[in-house]
Amino acid sequence: MSKLLIVGTVAFDAIETPFGKTDKILGGAGTYIGLSAAQFNVDSAVVSVVGDDFPQKYLDLLTNNNINIEGIEIVEGGKTFFWSGRYHNDLNTRDTLDTQLNVLADFQPIVPSAYKDANIVMLGNLHPLVQLSVLEQIENPKLVVLDTMNFWMDNTWEDLLKVIKKVDVITINDEEARQLSGEHSLVKAARKIYELGPDYVVIKKGEHGALLFHQEEIFFAPALPLEEVFDPTGAGDTFAGGFAGYLAKTNDISFENMKNAIIYGSNLASFCVEKFGTERMQELSATDVQGRLEEFKKLTQFEIEIT
Amino acid sequence: MSKLLIVGTVAFDAIETPFGKTDKILGGAGTYIGLSAAQFNVDSAVVSVVGDDFPQKYLDLLTNNNINIEGIEIVEGGKTFFWSGRYHNDLNTRDTLDTQLNVLADFQPIVPSAYKDANIVMLGNLHPLVQLSVLEQIENPKLVVLDTMNFWMDNTWEDLLKVIKKVDVITINDEEARQLSGEHSLVKAARKIYELGPDYVVIKKGEHGALLFHQEEIFFAPALPLEEVFDPTGAGDTFAGGFAGYLAKTNDISFENMKNAIIYGSNLASFCVEKFGTERMQELSATDVQGRLEEFKKLTQFEIEIT
Repeated sequence: MSKLLIVGTVAFDAIETPFGKTDKILGGAGTYIGLSAAQFNVDSAVVSVVGDDFPQKYLDLLTNNNINIEGIEIVEGGKTFFWSGRYHNDLNTRDTLDTQLNVLADFQPIVPSAYKDANIVMLGNLHPLVQLSVLEQIENPKLVVLDTMNFWMDNTWEDLLKVIKKVDVITINDEEARQLSGEHSLVKAARKIYELGPDYVVIKKGEHGALLFHQEEIFFAPALPLEEVFDPTGAGDTFAGGFAGYLAKTNDISFENMKNAIIYGSNLASFCVEKFGTERMQELSATDVQGRLEEFKKLTQFEIEIT
Repeated sequence: MSKLLIVGTVAFDAIETPFGKTDKILGGAGTYIGLSAAQFNVDSAVVSVVGDDFPQKYLDLLTNNNINIEGIEIVEGGKTFFWSGRYHNDLNTRDTLDTQLNVLADFQPIVPSAYKDANIVMLGNLHPLVQLSVLEQIENPKLVVLDTMNFWMDNTWEDLLKVIKKVDVITINDEEARQLSGEHSLVKAARKIYELGPDYVVIKKGEHGALLFHQEEIFFAPALPLEEVFDPTGAGDTFAGGFAGYLAKTNDISFENMKNAIIYGSNLASFCVEKFGTERMQELSATDVQGRLEEFKKLTQFEIEIT
């Protein structure tokens, strides 16, 4: 088994969906990635920063999931990053109501010494210079996965290109792939993105699934059709955590195994959206995940003889 | 092998896409369905109507594809149905520039006597009363597939419900499924649509693939990611023709075989969009289709042991 090093926000979210609203609850990309990867019982650590307003019970939750939190700095007198958003009726779009960077504004990530030899590095969505700083502290990673978003393309283009150049896998959504590449066709977009650095491009399409591109190969994982999506917050991070966690567990970064990894990513994301915040991920069992894997097989596998 | 009876428009289209525009070319749902099903060398007939302005070479094209055209009425002095449309840059939306019903306005479909015992009936997108009239002429069909669209939901709701009640499979797009059912979740939408009549619901999502629902089972066929979509006209009809044609060829209407049928539908639709109108479908070989089937397998098949 490999060591998995995760960098990402550990934060408070306040969420409104058509089904209800929450006060400040546990959120953040690092949290979702960590909880998702924890399903594989991997040796993982989260690098992040919180204020001293961050409840011990949330830190305990991570620890209880075998996530090393040595790399989560607690800033005395600081306030934890806070995001608040309201989803529209179709849950495909949302408005940000409030963003308070707080301690995130001056975040200087420090990778715990026991994880400087991590094999798999998952750079969650953050300022590209923070992602770069983490990468510089890792000795010889086997695979680096980058998650990012349009905000960094709009505001920190040059820095983003620097980190993209150093990663093996990039995960972005379809509109971001188009923005990054200038190509509408996702096939052409992936090819342009290879030129920026990554050998593997994962394009997330939300309820429409995810595509994995490598050279001339393409693999597709659908999203599981659900009766109800309750809260999409964290689905992309949970997907990334499942992807990285499965690769860390199996210690196999072949394209064939990455196919399985994005199926597991979709699998875990399908749970994340069933309840508010991290609630569903906290109560998730291995049996749940295996049962849903069976559903993914039924959903996608077919038998046609090639004549 | 079963007999396949198709009803649908045989028409002229004039198409504008970001890549170019055409004069009046061969189009119509019946044409696309027929050419697509012809890939399976099934015994098929198209029921439709054209004016005497319709070129013999287009009729010959159908005949040369082993499509019986006895049921295509030629109205002396009449003009053929004409549709003209312009696609937007992303090719996902289009504006109708002109619709001339012409001979379609008074279309009274007549099923050739040799096809009154058709096993598979494919009711292409048309006025629901025309679809009903065809259905009433068929003696004892094994499977009836209905394609329809929002236009009929908006304008002929009661008639549409009458035909929906009599069919086994309905194919509509995601927005139409929501409109028909009043449910946003496609899982819930399919369940509501079962109550209207069909045992199988196929929801087409264009570039995002297609879902097949039956009782509590779901199967998903992705669209093949393409470098370039040239002209989406007829893709939905080609999908339906591949679906019905494969079922007719195999004479097996089990859910397991329907999975294969929607893979073939997606397969054939992926060719349709590569050139203007029916151009690509006219030159398509069995080798092309088998090669792409291999691509669909690579795109979707994975090996994970359920533990």
